[in-house]
Amino acid sequence: MPANLLLLLPALAAAAEIHYHDTARQSQLRDSDRSYGRTNGREATAEYWANEAAAAISERKKRAPDNGGVARNIVMFLGDGMSVPTLAAARTLLGQRQGRPGEEAQLSFEAFPSVGLSKTYCLNAQIADSACTATAYLCGVKANSGTIGLTGAVPRFNCTASTDRATHVQSIAAWALQDGRDAGVVTTTRITHASPAGLYASVANRNWENDAAVTSAGHDTNLCPDIAYQLINMSPGNQLKVILGGGRREFLPVNMTDEENERGLRTDGRNLIEEWQASKRSQNVSHRYVWNRTELMELSSSPPDYLLGLFESNHMQYHLEANNVTEPTLAELTEVAIRSLSRNEKGFFLFVEGGRIDHGHHENYVHLALDETVELSKAVARAAELLSEDDSLLVVTADHAHVMAFNGYTPRGSDILGPSNSIDDNGVPYMTLSYTNGPGARMQTNGIRPNVLQDSNYGATRWRSHADAPLDSETHGGDDVAVFARGPHHHMFTGLYEQSQLPHLMAYAGCIGARSRDHPHCSAAHALTSPPLTALLLAVATLARAFGLLRL
Amino acid sequence: MPANLLLLLPALAAAAEIHYHDTARQSQLRDSDRSYGRTNGREATAEYWANEAAAAISERKKRAPDNGGVARNIVMFLGDGMSVPTLAAARTLLGQRQGRPGEEAQLSFEAFPSVGLSKTYCLNAQIADSACTATAYLCGVKANSGTIGLTGAVPRFNCTASTDRATHVQSIAAWALQDGRDAGVVTTTRITHASPAGLYASVANRNWENDAAVTSAGHDTNLCPDIAYQLINMSPGNQLKVILGGGRREFLPVNMTDEENERGLRTDGRNLIEEWQASKRSQNVSHRYVWNRTELMELSSSPPDYLLGLFESNHMQYHLEANNVTEPTLAELTEVAIRSLSRNEKGFFLFVEGGRIDHGHHENYVHLALDETVELSKAVARAAELLSEDDSLLVVTADHAHVMAFNGYTPRGSDILGPSNSIDDNGVPYMTLSYTNGPGARMQTNGIRPNVLQDSNYGATRWRSHADAPLDSETHGGDDVAVFARGPHHHMFTGLYEQSQLPHLMAYAGCIGARSRDHPHCSAAHALTSPPLTALLLAVATLARAFGLLRL
Repeated sequence: MPANLLLLLPALAAAAEIHYHDTARQSQLRDSDRSYGRTNGREATAEYWANEAAAAISERKKRAPDNGGVARNIVMFLGDGMSVPTLAAARTLLGQRQGRPGEEAQLSFEAFPSVGLSKTYCLNAQIADSACTATAYLCGVKANSGTIGLTGAVPRFNCTASTDRATHVQSIAAWALQDGRDAGVVTTTRITHASPAGLYASVANRNWENDAAVTSAGHDTNLCPDIAYQLINMSPGNQLKVILGGGRREFLPVNMTDEENERGLRTDGRNLIEEWQASKRSQNVSHRYVWNRTELMELSSSPPDYLLGLFESNHMQYHLEANNVTEPTLAELTEVAIRSLSRNEKGFFLFVEGGRIDHGHHENYVHLALDETVELSKAVARAAELLSEDDSLLVVTADHAHVMAFNGYTPRGSDILGPSNSIDDNGVPYMTLSYTNGPGARMQTNGIRPNVLQDSNYGATRWRSHADAPLDSETHGGDDVAVFARGPHHHMFTGLYEQSQLPHLMAYAGCIGARSRDHPHCSAAHALTSPPLTALLLAVATLARAFGLLRL
Repeated sequence: MPANLLLLLPALAAAAEIHYHDTARQSQLRDSDRSYGRTNGREATAEYWANEAAAAISERKKRAPDNGGVARNIVMFLGDGMSVPTLAAARTLLGQRQGRPGEEAQLSFEAFPSVGLSKTYCLNAQIADSACTATAYLCGVKANSGTIGLTGAVPRFNCTASTDRATHVQSIAAWALQDGRDAGVVTTTRITHASPAGLYASVANRNWENDAAVTSAGHDTNLCPDIAYQLINMSPGNQLKVILGGGRREFLPVNMTDEENERGLRTDGRNLIEEWQASKRSQNVSHRYVWNRTELMELSSSPPDYLLGLFESNHMQYHLEANNVTEPTLAELTEVAIRSLSRNEKGFFLFVEGGRIDHGHHENYVHLALDETVELSKAVARAAELLSEDDSLLVVTADHAHVMAFNGYTPRGSDILGPSNSIDDNGVPYMTLSYTNGPGARMQTNGIRPNVLQDSNYGATRWRSHADAPLDSETHGGDDVAVFARGPHHHMFTGLYEQSQLPHLMAYAGCIGARSRDHPHCSAAHALTSPPLTALLLAVATLARAFGLLRL
């Protein structure tokens, strides 16, 4: 498209509602005109924005202060590695999939009334890993990098130090269980991976997911039990009503293959999946182990008391690459978990992780990282439909950032997965989304970057965006992450604060644990007489589903 | 330091309070041990973090809901280009200057009770510039990139379209003036630069700062007056009580030099500084033009009715490089402005910009960008001391992000301006703070990045961190920026929202403009009988200063 025609476009766009279409690849142009972009006529008036603001003010006036009640149910959503730049990029992808420019789109949780920022550094780490951060946002304590469910008194790898029970800290799931509520965990990673392990394990090394990993490091599993073992045989893991994720290999012996012919990793001969079933049988409670989506969907309307679902040997597949028969979506997992846990009138705590945003970023697979973020958004939307704002707190956050940046002066509506409209000083394109480090780093030729648009796999989901410093795995970022909250006491989640405050804030809202009981709103908590609103909502949703109005 | 000694450090740190000292350059090591870092013994306990959270909850309970009063005074602070990653990096620098690890430090405004996120895209720009964003956060309307004080109906450069008065939008400063309040503007850039111009100008091109820029583009200054002219001779610029910043050259004719022997840029023969003085003289109001810090400080305790201070021909100097005799700090400028404006019992609106954070980033001068952020933090702290939380709203935000990322898995307390503790796949160091693009991009040698630690100017304030795509000027980022609020109705500023909501939210809190008057808290606004609390605070501060207890 000639440059002089481009100059006319803003006027054309302003003059009439335009039909959005994919102009993404048009944007591979010199940054000669920054006033080109896609919009619509209404947005070119002052009234549009004044009305937009007035509606928001009106909405906020209704919502603040919040109802001050008790969060009977709490669902915490964790986007692993979901940095602040990831949010803007993912919402733009979402909007563009809907045929809009994209920037004005909203991830489901971005509509939540309260937003905060969380400081993610760990006790010994300026830039955190997913283990010490899980200890912070689930157990309420900053810890050393690589450690889970332990105070900072235990250095990573130090099995002996971790045998001191005084160093063990429990998660908000354990606090909730002690109060007679139910608890569950859902993730797209191995269920023994660092983030979900923060719910139920105390371990000096996040990599000790099975016994072989412990013994090969020279430690005694009686002193330092592996993460899978802790989940199945120790408290609070053995009390969780719902356990859904990947990682079958951590539960099965090496001489055994799973339902998809993948070998187990355990060398202690244990089949922890069978042990879980035997334990529930001995307690005479209804229970079910499932390994694929079909099985899960069959029991979604009347789940057993205890549900264990392990859908992959390793992590679950990226959503964009998943087998739809064997792999449920995160939204489907979340719905089953909520239906199951909602049967406890005292309420529940559920942890849901979109764990592969992080993996996408580590590989510089920007499309996969953003798509996994959109999947998390869908899961949150499902929870928001199923749970009442009056008795259920939803909190969405990330554990740490990544080093993806959102470059350039791209026009409105530019393909978020495409190149900037400008080129570098050598005339070579650069992407709107790129990384400061990672495996996407390319070699220059005579000091000039390669044109990544000419990569043979350009446009593939596993195409890597470019990076500066070459690293096998792109690193985390040290910047703050966002917190979004909806439901009782949501306003407590605004401000900028230590990540370790999060479970304490949730416990405050939910009147969970001894520390919270003194708060005035909690004195009425055990005297609640009205039927849980969420139960009503779920009944309506079940009816709607029966009549085919809701897809699950 | 040998690796096995490093392994002992966490235990040593946990065992006792350690004295922090600069271990930054020690961190140029392979990423072989991530459990090394600086901390103190208390942080290694669960109680420390539980108490930290309990104190925060207690503080939030006191503060939410807010007092629901009226924000008589409003100060909006703008960190130009102050991205979310810039915050964490700048607070770490601040903490390290105080001899601490740094990550646990806090910029002054990070303690504000409410935090939000603002979407910065403009009408035709996925990634915004400082002109359309100024129109959003000051006039409440999203506009086209490069335009100021105009709706999206006007494309950049289109003088003719901008002559339609229906496209002109006014800033919250104008709204406040119409209500009988006072208004002022403070910046470290040229006072005619895009951000401050958003307060008082309507112009189709941000670069039309003087008449020569307009006429050389082929336009008539009678139709499209330049920004400096609008500030001095048009409303609301000519009603501003305080105007402090740089940019004398935009106000003086080419045949004249200023107090520091720099030539003016105007070709219309006008001396706008003299015109400003003549205008105030004719109105018989006290007024003063100052050009250096000494003059400014002399009148700080009893400022004239109208104050014009232009401290540089171009932008003010970076704080780290500034001449302390001629250049006041942003905190000093802010204090003088507040003292001046506080004399109006009806209140005021003040805009304060830390404008050179952006310039530091554009140059990949990461140290300068962070130091300017710390200076903004000091200015906010000064305002927070001088203004009461009960009648004064402080809002701190940024216009757009940048593409600096915070890399690696650096140990706690690592020099924020230093290299990561890990090296790239070729054994070459990379910095904790680096950019995806900009003038810091280096040429590889045989596919290997240069070791930037060996740069002859490494450690200098104007040393550039490294970048991937070579660009003369590093670009803005498209990610959201943070909003911090303290004072009446601070809770309205949480959530994630369009940047254009900001002036509407401030007007709501301050009962400014026709739109706001219907809100219930505003009906009592004009019936306030208690003496302004800020007046009392300022009187105390003045006394303290008289006795040498406060430095100004």
